[in-house]
Amino acid sequence: MSPIKPRTMPGVLELLPLEQIAFQGMLDTIRRQFERFGFLPVETPAIELSDILLTKSGGETERQVYFVQSTGSLRQGDRPELALRFDLTVPLARYVAQHEHELGFPFRRYQIQRVYRGESAQRGRFREFYQCDIDVIGKDRLSIRYDAEMPAVIHAVFKDLAVGPFTIELNNRKLIRGFFESLGIGDPERQTLVLREVDKLDKRGREAVAATLAAEPFALASSVVERIMAFVATRSSGHDDALARLAPLEAAGGTLGEGAAELREVLAMVRALGVPESDYAINFSIARGLDYYTGTVYETKLDDYPQIGSVCSGGRYENLASHYTNSRLPGVGISIGATRLFWQLREAGLIRTAESSVAVLVAQLDESDLTHYLGLANELRRAGIATEVQLEPRKLARQFQYADKAGIRFVAMLGPDERAKGVVAVKDLRRGEQFEVARQELAKTLRVELEQAAAMRGR
Amino acid sequence: MSPIKPRTMPGVLELLPLEQIAFQGMLDTIRRQFERFGFLPVETPAIELSDILLTKSGGETERQVYFVQSTGSLRQGDRPELALRFDLTVPLARYVAQHEHELGFPFRRYQIQRVYRGESAQRGRFREFYQCDIDVIGKDRLSIRYDAEMPAVIHAVFKDLAVGPFTIELNNRKLIRGFFESLGIGDPERQTLVLREVDKLDKRGREAVAATLAAEPFALASSVVERIMAFVATRSSGHDDALARLAPLEAAGGTLGEGAAELREVLAMVRALGVPESDYAINFSIARGLDYYTGTVYETKLDDYPQIGSVCSGGRYENLASHYTNSRLPGVGISIGATRLFWQLREAGLIRTAESSVAVLVAQLDESDLTHYLGLANELRRAGIATEVQLEPRKLARQFQYADKAGIRFVAMLGPDERAKGVVAVKDLRRGEQFEVARQELAKTLRVELEQAAAMRGR
Repeated sequence: MSPIKPRTMPGVLELLPLEQIAFQGMLDTIRRQFERFGFLPVETPAIELSDILLTKSGGETERQVYFVQSTGSLRQGDRPELALRFDLTVPLARYVAQHEHELGFPFRRYQIQRVYRGESAQRGRFREFYQCDIDVIGKDRLSIRYDAEMPAVIHAVFKDLAVGPFTIELNNRKLIRGFFESLGIGDPERQTLVLREVDKLDKRGREAVAATLAAEPFALASSVVERIMAFVATRSSGHDDALARLAPLEAAGGTLGEGAAELREVLAMVRALGVPESDYAINFSIARGLDYYTGTVYETKLDDYPQIGSVCSGGRYENLASHYTNSRLPGVGISIGATRLFWQLREAGLIRTAESSVAVLVAQLDESDLTHYLGLANELRRAGIATEVQLEPRKLARQFQYADKAGIRFVAMLGPDERAKGVVAVKDLRRGEQFEVARQELAKTLRVELEQAAAMRGR
Repeated sequence: MSPIKPRTMPGVLELLPLEQIAFQGMLDTIRRQFERFGFLPVETPAIELSDILLTKSGGETERQVYFVQSTGSLRQGDRPELALRFDLTVPLARYVAQHEHELGFPFRRYQIQRVYRGESAQRGRFREFYQCDIDVIGKDRLSIRYDAEMPAVIHAVFKDLAVGPFTIELNNRKLIRGFFESLGIGDPERQTLVLREVDKLDKRGREAVAATLAAEPFALASSVVERIMAFVATRSSGHDDALARLAPLEAAGGTLGEGAAELREVLAMVRALGVPESDYAINFSIARGLDYYTGTVYETKLDDYPQIGSVCSGGRYENLASHYTNSRLPGVGISIGATRLFWQLREAGLIRTAESSVAVLVAQLDESDLTHYLGLANELRRAGIATEVQLEPRKLARQFQYADKAGIRFVAMLGPDERAKGVVAVKDLRRGEQFEVARQELAKTLRVELEQAAAMRGR
């Protein structure tokens, strides 16, 4: 029988082990920082009931949904009962509504799981990918103060990921809305349409967007277009500059003033949370999720890789779960698309995949001494050091080659001479040097080396 | 609009946050031990191509498969192109065949992911659940020595999970097959049918099974039935007892002798790997995956909870990926069904869900001092301590109540007096005592307490 060609569906990122170790390190870092900020883990099933997942009928989202059917229920026409989640927000809404009376509020949850979208196949677009989300959900109300925690978490995560300088950009939807009202563009739908054009600034350029806004159906006066273009070009450089730009808007009062005041309060708390002012800024062009977000909005950009776009985004919303409960559940959250981020960082050459999670290979010098090697491995493993034993006979040079290629740093050798002296010979493949260490000291010595190396990688 | 009732599909285990913390702790423990034994992480997409997943036509497996279709491709009749994996073994086979030339062999991989089965709804049966697998895959051949690593990993995992005493039971399919051959039952299919009856011993009892084997279609002589029943009742007590039971079988030679010799070699290495002899035994009734396994097979039972059945099983197989490659890839592996295990341990009252992953709540004493609290939280977080800040004003007693209910152990208070003295007041809710500590010493002090508590939980 001729074999079936082994392959995955297009649009998934399947990694080789050393890449997977690097990716797992990224997820671990994100999780560690989410936990440090007091967020609690939640996992939800990948499969949800379709009527739960697809409360909004039709549209782009529904076309990208993967439906699920067991063999017995494959039928024509009927919309299948089950579907795969396409984000973590709808499952969160369902979760909070379902378990409302068992949760403490404000409810702080993190969730790191895969989501599924029937995207058309395209380089860098994924059909199955990780999202790493945090949200704080209030009952009836949620203080603006929670909005300030998000940039602090983003900052801690991206510092820990060690991906170079980055800027967390903030804006406020009330501020945007109030600004448009002050220009006489009061209709929210019209505001949305204008914002959608403004959102194309990076792609189309300033003049093309200005021309569109001056033409039908917008037909905005050129002075209005000019004010919009100036407004959305606003970027702060430093904390005081941000405050100075907000002050006149706050003084203007109304929705505009309210949005500016919120942003000011958030910035003050972001600073109090220890985020250096070089790492955040206000950017009035950020709109995000036009229908969904109602207050603070966030984007995060890598300073040296602007082409990557935002690597962590989110914002404040009025009511999480109106489809599932009559309780009012305002919230604020951010999301990191980890699969795409990893892929982009790898494309940019920022992913190190040289080192294994395995730290030590115990060499096999003499087959009849195998039990000695197993005993040594046992000691190292008990001390928390990831250890592999050479179980099949092989030339020592080949064992070194294997360890080197596999990214294993240390090869431990325990021959009769070493046993007589109570030592272990260790070859450090990274430093290219060999040393002897007392057997009782081996685990401690290696642990110190491994911890130093981890610290130097910025962990 | 009346809300849609929030709910999950039947057959999933969705956990509240404190339960999720306990479950996550279980997965972390399993992963830690897998890594210590030098296994490398692999993740594969949940969605595979149907023709890859369903190489065997029809049967029980296919009826339990969840097929996946994006909205555009919902059609009648055609078998959908995509399906959710129902285990981690088929994806491993596909992965190894696909990446064969980029992997080092023997390839040691661990994989901790969810799998999906369209099971009929029933208490304790899950449609979406975690499997935690390790496998070692050889190219052309794989030494029996790798079979001995599996019990060592199982031992390390279940010790670390601290679920009480357990026994890793071993058997060997060659030994079983050789035994049947010695009785004149040479046809593998017939052996399989007999083993399937023997497998019902626990449920049906000795007499009922013996009666079945004596009747058509088996029609075995009563002396043969007696020998089978005696054989499958074999359990060893201690290492030497196991060797003593194997010795005559090994002396018999043939397939039986070969199986006994393999088992002897595995047991010797299991002991050399530091597994205490109280924690493993031979059990000749274990057959497992009758068509699949060809040598060593494993089951693991919790001594105090026999009704749970095997919590970790696996074995040796001849050829992993014959459907996808002409290379011969023998392997050995084990699997832990973590979702079911967690559910069972919870039912047995063995899961502690009292403690949060959040260690400290920084109390809010005076709203105008919020920046001081944020600064303190910042220090704790940088020191790696998971910290939440009380952001909205609330009576202090309510803050204590909240922390207690949420499983947060420490409440840190930084009033004007404490600030003047350079200290922080800490209430330890577990010990019910309050103390003061120099601010510079706070993180270190709390870390020592938390590490001690973790150590006492058996980590």
